[in-house]
Amino acid sequence: MPQIKTGPQIDRVIQLLARLPGFGPRSARRAALHLMKNRQSLLDPLARALQAAAESVRTCPECGNLDTEVPCAICASPRRGRDIICVVEDISDLWALERAGAYQGLYHVTGGVLSPIDGVTPEDLNIPALVARAAQPEVREVILALNATVEGQTTGHYIARALRECHVTITRLAHGVPVGGELDYLDEGTLAAALKARR
Amino acid sequence: MPQIKTGPQIDRVIQLLARLPGFGPRSARRAALHLMKNRQSLLDPLARALQAAAESVRTCPECGNLDTEVPCAICASPRRGRDIICVVEDISDLWALERAGAYQGLYHVTGGVLSPIDGVTPEDLNIPALVARAAQPEVREVILALNATVEGQTTGHYIARALRECHVTITRLAHGVPVGGELDYLDEGTLAAALKARR
Repeated sequence: MPQIKTGPQIDRVIQLLARLPGFGPRSARRAALHLMKNRQSLLDPLARALQAAAESVRTCPECGNLDTEVPCAICASPRRGRDIICVVEDISDLWALERAGAYQGLYHVTGGVLSPIDGVTPEDLNIPALVARAAQPEVREVILALNATVEGQTTGHYIARALRECHVTITRLAHGVPVGGELDYLDEGTLAAALKARR
Repeated sequence: MPQIKTGPQIDRVIQLLARLPGFGPRSARRAALHLMKNRQSLLDPLARALQAAAESVRTCPECGNLDTEVPCAICASPRRGRDIICVVEDISDLWALERAGAYQGLYHVTGGVLSPIDGVTPEDLNIPALVARAAQPEVREVILALNATVEGQTTGHYIARALRECHVTITRLAHGVPVGGELDYLDEGTLAAALKARR
């Protein structure tokens, strides 16, 4: 990045902002300038909020979610059903399911998909911990909510095999037409799956 | 924004990030998650960098630039020519000119353009301070590097009139073909200006 004749503090903020997803050098500069111009209303609160998050946010040892409590609010909640575990690839998928508000069980975050080429093993994905959780007598169902990619589906097959001894029902998210979606824009695979699963 | 079942610290970070230019609720969530996942390498350093910037960055009372020193590094530098003042609308314009590295004089940031409808007056734009600076005997030239918009040009005319008594040469940035630009994509006004100013 070309040098800007400002203090090293501003340069440092620009450099770090440029490492956020969705930001490049130009947008990071714009965001940094916006922050500096709004010191009272934005820069100070954001600095304090990040500091508070850095001090308090922890990874839940049970499910892999991020929260300020250990275990996380979902694992600790008495209102969540302990008989279902939903396996997701990433915390963003967990958040997406929570926003949908249609699931009341527990989660398990793998943090990725199996990839022998990249050296990602079942241990890296927390799968032994999932097997141990699924082996507990109260667990009846494991939902594999992995992404509908080749790697996600391969990982799903591996998990299903690893859970064979656990006496749990293994389910997957339904494929079909997105709510509000137009048929014309859907790929053939999704349409075929939606047709096959018609009710 | 729909509620996410995480601690209030994470929600607060997402809310504040969503107020940055170029970020919406979705990209702010993605950035917050990226920060939380990279606590050591990104979240901690960014929190500290913002804190340091909030404590040290000040507006230069001379030119309106942002810096950690007062007056700013440009105003304080003995290597900058004190006989030329370049008037820009925004600090981002000052940064852009500094990146070009072709200017060795001082700056004056107006912080906007005249707009009677929005109630922006010459006082809001620091124009009296500019007139006082331009009246100093060492100043020989004022460059109006305002944006080539109607408001920018109107403001330029106003500043030129305000500086009439100051015995300074008033110049403007040249219009022309951007370096590396293709003629086919340029508007007629720019092409006509480039043709007229041919050398």
